[in-house]
Amino acid sequence: MGKGSTEAEAEPGAPSARGGDRPRLAITAGDPSGIGPEIVLKALNDERSQKGRLVVLGDEGNLRRTSRELRIRWPFAAVVRELPATWERPILLDLADGVDALVPGQISKPAGLAAAHAIETAARLALAGAVDGVVTAPIHKEALSLAGVEDPGHTEMLQRLTGAPRVGMLFWTEDFAVALLTTHVSLTEAIRRIRPSRLFEQLAFVEREWRRWLGRAPRIAVCGLNPHASEGGRFGHEEQLHIEPAIAKAQARGLLVTGPIAPDAVFSLAKEGRFDLVFALYHDQATIPVKFAYGRKAVNVTLGLPFVRTSVDHGTAFDIAGKGIADPESVVQSVCLAARMVLNRA
Amino acid sequence: MGKGSTEAEAEPGAPSARGGDRPRLAITAGDPSGIGPEIVLKALNDERSQKGRLVVLGDEGNLRRTSRELRIRWPFAAVVRELPATWERPILLDLADGVDALVPGQISKPAGLAAAHAIETAARLALAGAVDGVVTAPIHKEALSLAGVEDPGHTEMLQRLTGAPRVGMLFWTEDFAVALLTTHVSLTEAIRRIRPSRLFEQLAFVEREWRRWLGRAPRIAVCGLNPHASEGGRFGHEEQLHIEPAIAKAQARGLLVTGPIAPDAVFSLAKEGRFDLVFALYHDQATIPVKFAYGRKAVNVTLGLPFVRTSVDHGTAFDIAGKGIADPESVVQSVCLAARMVLNRA
Repeated sequence: MGKGSTEAEAEPGAPSARGGDRPRLAITAGDPSGIGPEIVLKALNDERSQKGRLVVLGDEGNLRRTSRELRIRWPFAAVVRELPATWERPILLDLADGVDALVPGQISKPAGLAAAHAIETAARLALAGAVDGVVTAPIHKEALSLAGVEDPGHTEMLQRLTGAPRVGMLFWTEDFAVALLTTHVSLTEAIRRIRPSRLFEQLAFVEREWRRWLGRAPRIAVCGLNPHASEGGRFGHEEQLHIEPAIAKAQARGLLVTGPIAPDAVFSLAKEGRFDLVFALYHDQATIPVKFAYGRKAVNVTLGLPFVRTSVDHGTAFDIAGKGIADPESVVQSVCLAARMVLNRA
Repeated sequence: MGKGSTEAEAEPGAPSARGGDRPRLAITAGDPSGIGPEIVLKALNDERSQKGRLVVLGDEGNLRRTSRELRIRWPFAAVVRELPATWERPILLDLADGVDALVPGQISKPAGLAAAHAIETAARLALAGAVDGVVTAPIHKEALSLAGVEDPGHTEMLQRLTGAPRVGMLFWTEDFAVALLTTHVSLTEAIRRIRPSRLFEQLAFVEREWRRWLGRAPRIAVCGLNPHASEGGRFGHEEQLHIEPAIAKAQARGLLVTGPIAPDAVFSLAKEGRFDLVFALYHDQATIPVKFAYGRKAVNVTLGLPFVRTSVDHGTAFDIAGKGIADPESVVQSVCLAARMVLNRA
């Protein structure tokens, strides 16, 4: 993305001679039984990840074993127990969770405890200003639950840990971004929540957060709900009753909002460069095209936190954990986007 | 598609020395003010279209003007007023609608009348056995309505003209096909129609039609409705109450059905070759990924008619009509698939 949509375009891409300009990013290793440790190690060996000064939060034993067994070069300049005031080459903050002997691909309480420990540490460091942003590797909901963490995912957990009043999920791809009105609720409930005030507030929130972290005011396309955006009410009335009033209000406030646009046309229009951001009304309206067309190149961003947070847009992939075949691209992309957001920060 | 999913794989691709083996296909020229005439002429000049013996149904004047103004080679061996018993090279059945002077890109009653005339003629010829299949170019709903045809589209019009008791829409791509439970109804109504008996009947119908026209029993993936297919009821109950019982019943009858599968994962699995057919529960669940990822290469198939019917999967594109820049790929793909279906016919 970013054809003109961000201000400091050239910055994050340019290898900085002064390491001090590179954002400090904490990367959680994720569930130690999933592909997290593997893809984090691989990503650290990718030149593109050096746009940030990186500290990985995880268990040294688990990462050493992963490096050894999967023959991934050990990428760390140092292993520490306390974060130093400054660093240049990647370092590992050893959380000493004692999870080096876990079997890959299995749900367990120790794995959940280690995953939660890394997220809590990342939030604490970011809130204290010791890092500029957080990149997270995949966790497993059930392992987290065994560890006593009932949040359904990273987003909710980070909201709880930071006390952020409102958070939102955004998918970032090389062609456009997608924000959502609702996420993990039933489709019936998602439809029920399409109301002018809620829609307007979320639009305004996403637009504000975009300007805060990503640059100029985005050109936003709002999806319709019904087939062909209902063709003027032929197939449903949500467009006329709820979506159009919210768009009108947003336009009146100066937001660059268009819609409602037929959901099966809007992503192609965005890809052609007509919009920076597609605003989806329910989970699958966003995730079906993003996951199908961009797969591991998509990045998941949490809006509304006091710091930058990006994440891989896939799960722990227990079926391939420990095999050495996991693709680190989403971690690399998450690091690059996090670095860019920190540098763009308004 | 078709990695092992059809019986007569090699047939339609092989240029037949005996033209008599090539299916006879009627191609409607669509709305004469849209891109239909242009893409039909272009498609006839594409070698791949010669898998069928083609007769175009349209207005000679309009097609001559299109050919001349857009500099598209005139592809017809003959212009006729009555369909001959046999032919080899493409012919034009002139419907003499007097629409040569229509302005491209405008909705009009004469355009709607001409479009309807071609569809009615195609259905009549196919029902009489004078052609083996029908390929349709895009029409415009409003022009059709001005002409007194109130059907919302081709599918409904062909159902009316043939008296077919049940029809269904199927999208065909190079990687997989997608069938739908419902099409042009509101999303709320589409959810209301997800009931075990209706779902089972449509599954059985689609599977039967697939075997009739496309070969071996398809491996079918049924989409869930809710995010992550509800994760066992966490986000909605349609999966447990309605979808799973229908799948169980279909499996008990020997259908190769799997699901419900998370809607944002199922299309990638199908693309990997795990399924031949994705069964979608509502319009956009099918059309968002198909249109975004396959665009003009997707083909729309009507199941349940007494003859083969394929169609381009896009509209009249009035914004680019008459400019000579329309892409004929979807017509070519529609012709190839129609030829293949005729040859595969059980």
